[in-house]
Amino acid sequence: MAEPLYLGIDLGGTKIATAVVSRGGEILAQARGPTPARHGVHAVVRAMAALATEAVNEAALDLRSLAGVGLGAPGPIDAEAGLVVSPPNLPGWRNVDLAELLGEMLHTRLVLGNDANLAALAEHRFGAGRGCSPLVYLTVSTGIGGAILLDGKLLSGVRGTAGEVGHMVLLPQGPLCGCGNRGCLEALASGTAIARQARESVRRGVPSALAERFASQPELVTAASVAEAARGGDLEALIILRTAMDHLGRGVANLVSLLNPERVVIGGGLASLGPDLLEPVTAAVHRLANPVAASSVSILLAELGPDAGVLGAAAAAM
Amino acid sequence: MAEPLYLGIDLGGTKIATAVVSRGGEILAQARGPTPARHGVHAVVRAMAALATEAVNEAALDLRSLAGVGLGAPGPIDAEAGLVVSPPNLPGWRNVDLAELLGEMLHTRLVLGNDANLAALAEHRFGAGRGCSPLVYLTVSTGIGGAILLDGKLLSGVRGTAGEVGHMVLLPQGPLCGCGNRGCLEALASGTAIARQARESVRRGVPSALAERFASQPELVTAASVAEAARGGDLEALIILRTAMDHLGRGVANLVSLLNPERVVIGGGLASLGPDLLEPVTAAVHRLANPVAASSVSILLAELGPDAGVLGAAAAAM
Repeated sequence: MAEPLYLGIDLGGTKIATAVVSRGGEILAQARGPTPARHGVHAVVRAMAALATEAVNEAALDLRSLAGVGLGAPGPIDAEAGLVVSPPNLPGWRNVDLAELLGEMLHTRLVLGNDANLAALAEHRFGAGRGCSPLVYLTVSTGIGGAILLDGKLLSGVRGTAGEVGHMVLLPQGPLCGCGNRGCLEALASGTAIARQARESVRRGVPSALAERFASQPELVTAASVAEAARGGDLEALIILRTAMDHLGRGVANLVSLLNPERVVIGGGLASLGPDLLEPVTAAVHRLANPVAASSVSILLAELGPDAGVLGAAAAAM
Repeated sequence: MAEPLYLGIDLGGTKIATAVVSRGGEILAQARGPTPARHGVHAVVRAMAALATEAVNEAALDLRSLAGVGLGAPGPIDAEAGLVVSPPNLPGWRNVDLAELLGEMLHTRLVLGNDANLAALAEHRFGAGRGCSPLVYLTVSTGIGGAILLDGKLLSGVRGTAGEVGHMVLLPQGPLCGCGNRGCLEALASGTAIARQARESVRRGVPSALAERFASQPELVTAASVAEAARGGDLEALIILRTAMDHLGRGVANLVSLLNPERVVIGGGLASLGPDLLEPVTAAVHRLANPVAASSVSILLAELGPDAGVLGAAAAAM
């Protein structure tokens, strides 16, 4: 009998990725394309179906020969009903039964999951969290999401929302978060938070490489430009970045005390900071978390990068 | 065949409680006595054995006829090695193999657990968290402990320290905690924290019922005297208590966002505050936690009171 193969489909706000994946996490074929988000749900579903078919054809397979198909989409997702609720980066989507719509088009059953959960699953099965339990996964990019895995299974909670690490409130009266609260981890340590701090610094006229570069257009400052200025030794950029990473470390320390995880894996765009993320976060955990829990956890960067989405979607169908 | 019966033994810093318990959580016989803590480990073990024998005799049983014996002790406990590590309220105890020592004296095997975990188990099996999953349990008294149960099983983590809710850091630069950090939940909302705030208020000369009563001896103020003054309408006492309960609410809100529990049960001495605890905590959860998680959780006071210890110890042996 041939090795069972799986199709993973990863829907993002700007990109769709699909891949044929082995049980061991090898990508045998893949296809990627833009998300036609402005053209509505059905255009997006058609684009997903076309890219799925392309990947399957490239692997010289047909859909019926696959052992399973998994589908990741931006949260929030109503796990019970299988709906994509209202992702902030897919405007106009409300309670879309994406697995059903795409399943009809592809004539197959699909397993639906939210992207942070599936990336966690992928890191547990194939990446930096291989075989670890409890595993805490954080994705730090525009927002901060996460997931908790116990013996390789997602802790979903009673309504599927467990793992909301980004909205732990860490600083009462802190900066306003997109969720309406103040001082959430996401409002303190996400790419959006870093960019906001840097823009305010530029607007206040604090002397820095950022101020020189963006004085006339502070709204163009991004987390990437802060990281770049920090690498160039700019003090103000270093302080902004370090403050954000200290907050991230406090959030991770709370998770370590609460869950006594074997491993914490940090992915998402900001994982590209490498040691500039890992060192302050690890230091905060050793300073603040339960000492037994701090001494038994390892904190690592995610290994799978942008493939985590398709690999996790495939893993969900395994 | 007769119904299987269990013995629960609960070792506290000041009291030892033992009880013969049915599978349904009925207490058939019990014996209680003081902990001879100043007389060392062996005196304590002998007192435990005597009270255990007393309860078993009162139920007209002998130890060999019991289906299991469970033993709760103050944390921290090294779950892997089965040791009572160094409980702050049992001075001089270091890595005591209590289950082995007491088991030899009683000629039986004992299951050892920490008191907060066992109280959580008891509330899940017989009390306010019956059958709920995930269940978050907090005990708020001198300190703040807790436990997380999934499908009735303790989430222990990789080294048995999971559930350390008391040392989530909620207020950077907040008051110093016994653990050496600042702004832990325990340093903001425990009985000790409330008493400390009130003593500082008396020392600063803030006019209040507490200042009138304790002006000459502020060190005698306890959380109970604050609660009493608050019930009498004293504004300063009300503010101190309410601030502590708001912090507790922020801690619970973080747990609700992270774990999406079906129920949160709050026990320990401060649970006697009743609505003065439950209302601000529930309000904070609705204000701060993920809305889906907040709308699907119920927050209740523990039901089992001081019996939670022996019931949980018995439940651990079931």
